[in-house]
Amino acid sequence: MESITDLRVRYAETDAMGIVHHAAYIVWLELGRSDLLRSLGSGYAEWERRGVHMSVSGLAMTYRAPCRYDEVVRVRTWILDAGRRKVVFGYLLERDGQRLAEGTSTHLVTGSDGRARTLPEDLLALLLSAGPSRSGGPG
Amino acid sequence: MESITDLRVRYAETDAMGIVHHAAYIVWLELGRSDLLRSLGSGYAEWERRGVHMSVSGLAMTYRAPCRYDEVVRVRTWILDAGRRKVVFGYLLERDGQRLAEGTSTHLVTGSDGRARTLPEDLLALLLSAGPSRSGGPG
Amino acid sequence: MESITDLRVRYAETDAMGIVHHAAYIVWLELGRSDLLRSLGSGYAEWERRGVHMSVSGLAMTYRAPCRYDEVVRVRTWILDAGRRKVVFGYLLERDGQRLAEGTSTHLVTGSDGRARTLPEDLLALLLSAGPSRSGGPG
Amino acid sequence: MESITDLRVRYAETDAMGIVHHAAYIVWLELGRSDLLRSLGSGYAEWERRGVHMSVSGLAMTYRAPCRYDEVVRVRTWILDAGRRKVVFGYLLERDGQRLAEGTSTHLVTGSDGRARTLPEDLLALLLSAGPSRSGGPG
Repeated sequence: MESITDLRVRYAETDAMGIVHHAAYIVWLELGRSDLLRSLGSGYAEWERRGVHMSVSGLAMTYRAPCRYDEVVRVRTWILDAGRRKVVFGYLLERDGQRLAEGTSTHLVTGSDGRARTLPEDLLALLLSAGPSRSGGPG
Repeated sequence: MESITDLRVRYAETDAMGIVHHAAYIVWLELGRSDLLRSLGSGYAEWERRGVHMSVSGLAMTYRAPCRYDEVVRVRTWILDAGRRKVVFGYLLERDGQRLAEGTSTHLVTGSDGRARTLPEDLLALLLSAGPSRSGGPG
Repeated sequence: MESITDLRVRYAETDAMGIVHHAAYIVWLELGRSDLLRSLGSGYAEWERRGVHMSVSGLAMTYRAPCRYDEVVRVRTWILDAGRRKVVFGYLLERDGQRLAEGTSTHLVTGSDGRARTLPEDLLALLLSAGPSRSGGPG
Repeated sequence: MESITDLRVRYAETDAMGIVHHAAYIVWLELGRSDLLRSLGSGYAEWERRGVHMSVSGLAMTYRAPCRYDEVVRVRTWILDAGRRKVVFGYLLERDGQRLAEGTSTHLVTGSDGRARTLPEDLLALLLSAGPSRSGGPG
């Protein structure tokens, strides 16, 4: 299972090269995660109200083609791995079917105080229901 | 009294016009406020530890000339008005003596919960020591 | 005539106060302008391809209530004034009918080189078709 | 050889967790690269004037500890690998000697049009003078 997020590039996300700045993609991954969790039935705002946070511990991105103001970018997001203490997401970014970038983000489960904690059973079950797979992704 | 903040334009602050995006200036004003409070003897991080926040309630900016990546911008910051419940800052942005922009920001004093409160006496005295003046600024 | 832009607050747009940072609203105004021009029939990307830019020369914002991650914010955008050399937009931001903020932005018409130029007749006509009115807005 | 960039955390760089948002670090890496090139004798603004760009093709980050508003973060930047078509930078982020994060960024040499080109000899020599080493970094 993957979620799909379509977003339109903001002018503020571009830089003097005339293309989207590479840090903006990192924010787009976050939109993808938000949408994936919401589609699983429990949005991240609800997680936080329960005192469950996912702190980013790692990022890896490969950029393949630039994109520009006003273009529509599709972010595909899926779960690569989900455990009590760590969750890994995979991402693919496309524009009109052309691959723009792909990446992964790794998250440690923490409380509101930033300390490590374990995922509540129901949230872990939710993530596992998305069929995490190291070989996963949109093939 | 005014404080001076010199900053170097970040590439991420530029946009596809090849110049700095207008929203980046708003962040620079915040740097100016931070430096002014620090130079008065009590940084804003310390304010927040005491449960005193300055919520932005108004902004006004006039943009006169663009600036570009790697240029050094000087932000001059002063206090236009300071009261128990409201503080107004003035700003002038320059590059090599050329005026780039000027603005004001208005802030309401709130607690950590976002509700209105009054400034502690010592912080109000600190602000008043900077000689707020409606006619102020580097005129 | 006004355009309506519904956006979901991004986590990256929040700050340590737990609410959306005031500079993020400035980017939202830009989304409003983009949508208004697109709805008039000629998106801003098309303007730029024709060498017509709208450089921000002024901003004024009033902030009335905070908003938070994952909330849906509605931006209402309209044209306050449109001339050959200058265009003024009005904005109202709401969440579930509650007013969050309102503002205006003033823009000078420039070429790709940043120099003043005049609006082509067809683009001026487009803006005027939106019924600019100093007394306008979603009254 | 490594360059050192000391920066003070901006309020706008924090998020609702009360700590710096992970995407802000990506912008800090860019500040580190800018400073490293400047210290080598030819700033990136000068590169761009000569039509030489470094497009980001890859990013990898590991986050170890959070940081907060007003803290001073040190970015150490060095060159891991430099060739005619590709340059790799390494980064270490610290606060008061505590490691916050580390990362690498990979860049392809392009022209103003975004197309692949080769580095001019003098710029390649400049990068090589910094002693790139796969095993490099601040040991």
